[in-house]
Amino acid sequence: MIRAGILGASGYTGARLALYLSRHSGVEIAFATSRKDKGKTMSDLYGALRNICDIDLIDPEDATKIDIDVLFTCAPDQTSMKVVPDYYEKGVKIIDLAGDFRMDSPEIYESWYGAPHTSPDYLKKKVFGLTELYRDNIKETSLLSNPGCYPTSVLLGIAPLVKSGGVNCDDIFVSSMSGISGAGKGLSQFKLFYEADSNVLPYNQGRGHKHAGEMEQELSKIAGEKCTVVFAPHVIPIKTGILSTIRLTMKDNMSRDDVAALYRGMYADEPFVRVYDDRLPESKFVADSNFCDIGYSIAEGTNTLIVVSTICNLGKGASGQAVQNMNVMFGFDEKEGLL
Amino acid sequence: MIRAGILGASGYTGARLALYLSRHSGVEIAFATSRKDKGKTMSDLYGALRNICDIDLIDPEDATKIDIDVLFTCAPDQTSMKVVPDYYEKGVKIIDLAGDFRMDSPEIYESWYGAPHTSPDYLKKKVFGLTELYRDNIKETSLLSNPGCYPTSVLLGIAPLVKSGGVNCDDIFVSSMSGISGAGKGLSQFKLFYEADSNVLPYNQGRGHKHAGEMEQELSKIAGEKCTVVFAPHVIPIKTGILSTIRLTMKDNMSRDDVAALYRGMYADEPFVRVYDDRLPESKFVADSNFCDIGYSIAEGTNTLIVVSTICNLGKGASGQAVQNMNVMFGFDEKEGLL
Amino acid sequence: MIRAGILGASGYTGARLALYLSRHSGVEIAFATSRKDKGKTMSDLYGALRNICDIDLIDPEDATKIDIDVLFTCAPDQTSMKVVPDYYEKGVKIIDLAGDFRMDSPEIYESWYGAPHTSPDYLKKKVFGLTELYRDNIKETSLLSNPGCYPTSVLLGIAPLVKSGGVNCDDIFVSSMSGISGAGKGLSQFKLFYEADSNVLPYNQGRGHKHAGEMEQELSKIAGEKCTVVFAPHVIPIKTGILSTIRLTMKDNMSRDDVAALYRGMYADEPFVRVYDDRLPESKFVADSNFCDIGYSIAEGTNTLIVVSTICNLGKGASGQAVQNMNVMFGFDEKEGLL
Amino acid sequence: MIRAGILGASGYTGARLALYLSRHSGVEIAFATSRKDKGKTMSDLYGALRNICDIDLIDPEDATKIDIDVLFTCAPDQTSMKVVPDYYEKGVKIIDLAGDFRMDSPEIYESWYGAPHTSPDYLKKKVFGLTELYRDNIKETSLLSNPGCYPTSVLLGIAPLVKSGGVNCDDIFVSSMSGISGAGKGLSQFKLFYEADSNVLPYNQGRGHKHAGEMEQELSKIAGEKCTVVFAPHVIPIKTGILSTIRLTMKDNMSRDDVAALYRGMYADEPFVRVYDDRLPESKFVADSNFCDIGYSIAEGTNTLIVVSTICNLGKGASGQAVQNMNVMFGFDEKEGLL
Repeated sequence: MIRAGILGASGYTGARLALYLSRHSGVEIAFATSRKDKGKTMSDLYGALRNICDIDLIDPEDATKIDIDVLFTCAPDQTSMKVVPDYYEKGVKIIDLAGDFRMDSPEIYESWYGAPHTSPDYLKKKVFGLTELYRDNIKETSLLSNPGCYPTSVLLGIAPLVKSGGVNCDDIFVSSMSGISGAGKGLSQFKLFYEADSNVLPYNQGRGHKHAGEMEQELSKIAGEKCTVVFAPHVIPIKTGILSTIRLTMKDNMSRDDVAALYRGMYADEPFVRVYDDRLPESKFVADSNFCDIGYSIAEGTNTLIVVSTICNLGKGASGQAVQNMNVMFGFDEKEGLL
Repeated sequence: MIRAGILGASGYTGARLALYLSRHSGVEIAFATSRKDKGKTMSDLYGALRNICDIDLIDPEDATKIDIDVLFTCAPDQTSMKVVPDYYEKGVKIIDLAGDFRMDSPEIYESWYGAPHTSPDYLKKKVFGLTELYRDNIKETSLLSNPGCYPTSVLLGIAPLVKSGGVNCDDIFVSSMSGISGAGKGLSQFKLFYEADSNVLPYNQGRGHKHAGEMEQELSKIAGEKCTVVFAPHVIPIKTGILSTIRLTMKDNMSRDDVAALYRGMYADEPFVRVYDDRLPESKFVADSNFCDIGYSIAEGTNTLIVVSTICNLGKGASGQAVQNMNVMFGFDEKEGLL
Repeated sequence: MIRAGILGASGYTGARLALYLSRHSGVEIAFATSRKDKGKTMSDLYGALRNICDIDLIDPEDATKIDIDVLFTCAPDQTSMKVVPDYYEKGVKIIDLAGDFRMDSPEIYESWYGAPHTSPDYLKKKVFGLTELYRDNIKETSLLSNPGCYPTSVLLGIAPLVKSGGVNCDDIFVSSMSGISGAGKGLSQFKLFYEADSNVLPYNQGRGHKHAGEMEQELSKIAGEKCTVVFAPHVIPIKTGILSTIRLTMKDNMSRDDVAALYRGMYADEPFVRVYDDRLPESKFVADSNFCDIGYSIAEGTNTLIVVSTICNLGKGASGQAVQNMNVMFGFDEKEGLL
Repeated sequence: MIRAGILGASGYTGARLALYLSRHSGVEIAFATSRKDKGKTMSDLYGALRNICDIDLIDPEDATKIDIDVLFTCAPDQTSMKVVPDYYEKGVKIIDLAGDFRMDSPEIYESWYGAPHTSPDYLKKKVFGLTELYRDNIKETSLLSNPGCYPTSVLLGIAPLVKSGGVNCDDIFVSSMSGISGAGKGLSQFKLFYEADSNVLPYNQGRGHKHAGEMEQELSKIAGEKCTVVFAPHVIPIKTGILSTIRLTMKDNMSRDDVAALYRGMYADEPFVRVYDDRLPESKFVADSNFCDIGYSIAEGTNTLIVVSTICNLGKGASGQAVQNMNVMFGFDEKEGLL
């Protein structure tokens, strides 16, 4: 039985984490923190967790005295970079669900996040936690940076194609639709039911979203060459879920069988990636789960390939992948707590 | 007071047409037909129309005896091509809301619709009813083919850019999100609330949707050169509304001001096109209306331009544009019945 | 052409009012105020109003210098009681959409609203603006208190029954479902899409909602005897709309025909009340409109009568009824601006 | 490891059952039948089940040869009454999720279901499977009739009150809101997203719903006297979930503490009933789960008590309770497969 702490547990990723960890046979939650909601329990905030996870929310300062094996940080940007060093030096394994450690250098971090990085040395210590691609490194690391939700859908969606060298990397266009929980629990006008229901909200299109930077950095590593991503995100009236529709051009034409073979080569044994050869996946297939479902279409008469990749933004796009990574880091069955 | 008939009035476009025409000061509805629902009234089917449009639904055969000035055909594909010739020869002006007369030749029709055209001579007599582009021709015609919903959003969205010669026409990618009424009122599993709510359904992606053909045909005319469209439609959980996100590449880089000038040049005096220079429109801005709202982003550091264009699929995408066209054809104020 | 001012125009009732007044042939909007959003336009806040109502939002203090014939107050509770006296004494007709003047005495006001009334003299000057019941008084008044949304649905729903003396007034139970706009535009956790979608939220049940007091006060006047209302409100995932299901017991059994006759007696000539003899109305029948739709069921073998009454909370439940009342007060056609 | 068969597995209760049984450590699914979809797999119909339950759907006739320990019947009304006798005589334990065996006599069955019962002898052999009330009988039975969704919410909601003798049994009013999956998967106009979204649909109010009969029959047993239920069901735009708001009158006034004590007396040790003393539960608290959440309000100054009881109609209202009952019948931990 390992002991886990959750920093910033009162938000939607914290609640999902509490659910998955409660189902996990090898973990107990040692603490859950919230500055704003301390004194309440997780099930005060989330009725669904009653009798499942009734842990008290405590102040993060009080949590530092509590012994843990793994720390999940779900706090807002620029928070985990402040607390990670102390936990790291104490020997606690860290899984950061924020964006603080995703970029590879302080310069790139600042260019996309608009703020300086205060723990730049740790950027190099971290492993980027896209489980399917970096499992071996994840086993060894003590600082795991959990990928962003949009990037998870896109990276898993096209990694086999980009890696194969068969598609043009300088011309990747991504149109994504996201459920509103991707924007978190903070109060903003556009998140109100009255504003969001029956509506499509396009935002930060082109190069305006920090996840475009994360996609480019990681795709470039997979491709072994510089990738350029143009990104068009939209918020649609669903609570959770991301579906990314990715337009690629092929260097030489590939058949559906060629494409299927590339996906099989990378994902045949993956428990949480499901590739469809004969249909397109819908976002409800992955609702609340840790699956990533992928389908594709070749636009006949052109060299264009359209990939559809869908995840639950709170599952594989956040807390699910975090638990999957914890399972790898601690030697649990990778599916434990997640099915 | 002109007299209008509606063929196939029991569906969603028929109901919207009944609403707009009821508000119109210069039209009376002479008949509304439905094979399936004859004997009922429009307000039996649509409670919202009670005391607004309570007309009886009659058999289309019985309607042929009734004198009208204009006929709206809202019947399924391959229906209006059978009835249009008779009405046309009687001197009735026709506004076809189906796809029967949208393509320019029987060969192109058959390639996209998968069925032979039984009134091929009338394909050449029709005017394509994108009001903003073909107003002069619309004034003169007796056979108007009302554009498809997706094409209306895309054609209005990029006509000024394509016409300017500044963008590459062989590489247009469209990702569209549509409300479920775009698929009509017929019973299918995917349209059930349980199936469609909290879900994104991608379908017919690449070159599989007949509206891709309509976009290509019409964009090619506007551009004066062959255009190629790759199309990725999605159904999302909204009742009505289409938002199309269109990726274009610029031949030479344009500034936001350059783009704004192109839109102003074409739409400055248009009552139903609203272009945003400083934000992106949301689909709710145009809900239930005849507006088309357009915004755009330039992906910095690339030659990519992303246009967002949104309409109500039952408004500007169907019955609204039909009434706007009727207003042009009969010399009414173009906004009558629509605001 | 009369001139109207809107105090507190930035909220949902203000926006709906702006829409209706823009469609009205006899009114121009002289000003619209918002402390928080002054400097913006109505269409900055509500994209749907672009080209329809682009008026600037100004500070309420600056508005006092502008000449108007009628003032609509949409500000939060305890605001209009402060400004009404000045406008009233200047001879401006006032339509208050808040709850400030709905109760008949300062004591009753304080007992339900939990705050003292600072303009108690004006409570007696006001007319309660349930148009169908108090049309003659409304014609004469300069201070109209527009009814609450829940009370409008309930009062119209059972007025003929209560007035007839045929039902027991001490035992009225109301279960209401409301769209979330009923709670206004202010930011609260429960209004977020993520919290409200796919959810039913029961709240303030029993005697905890101030609208129960308004129902009791007004039903007692209609009945001519003391009425007791037990009220069970729920928020459900719709943007607008209220449907109230009202359980009554009959003193002596009535047939459906008896009940129908009572409704006919009161509403036969009403343009905005639609009573169904053969089915139950659905809330979508009245969406965005000024209609109140009513149906009823007799529970066979018992003396229980169940009435269903549905309105749009922003239409007949607020801004629609306000405009209807303005039409009565100024001698316009009662339907002007509302169909 | 016991072997389970599912008759009529292609519907929503079948899919939910497949999910719960796949999570269950002591059961394997031996067969799943569907006349309409035979030849497909469960995950062809429900993408979410891919890699979780990919069993082939077979013809029910072919299933008769397959050895099983327990049969779940999810077929439409009047189907299980035909197949139950054969399975029963073979010694298979049966859990019927349809309504065929819920009523206690063929006469009562016919009066509420409008069709004669063809296996009347088995009505007496069945145990009504409200787990919390009839656990001991459930352990012994071979024919379990799983309660209806609305009745489960109401019976659990008020059983302690009715049993206590403190409330009036001849005057129970229930207003329920149900998600649309309660109406099943068959194609009907009112179930379309376009019809159901943003809408409240009241139906079968008074004594028109067969579940009113089930509530009365079962409440009468609990109370030890004849109970009368007037029932007002509504369909609202949520996929799953039922929230019932139940109006009772108290014979003598009870305090909140009195009421709390009654609930504690019956449910203190129940794993799936959660009673709230300090707030009202929301339907999302129980989404997709086997919980029943209960809260209550006393209408001050009256003798009225309002109980709110909420379940997931596919969980505790159908497949969840079915698995809970299977756990009791076969001696598994009652929570197995359900958390």
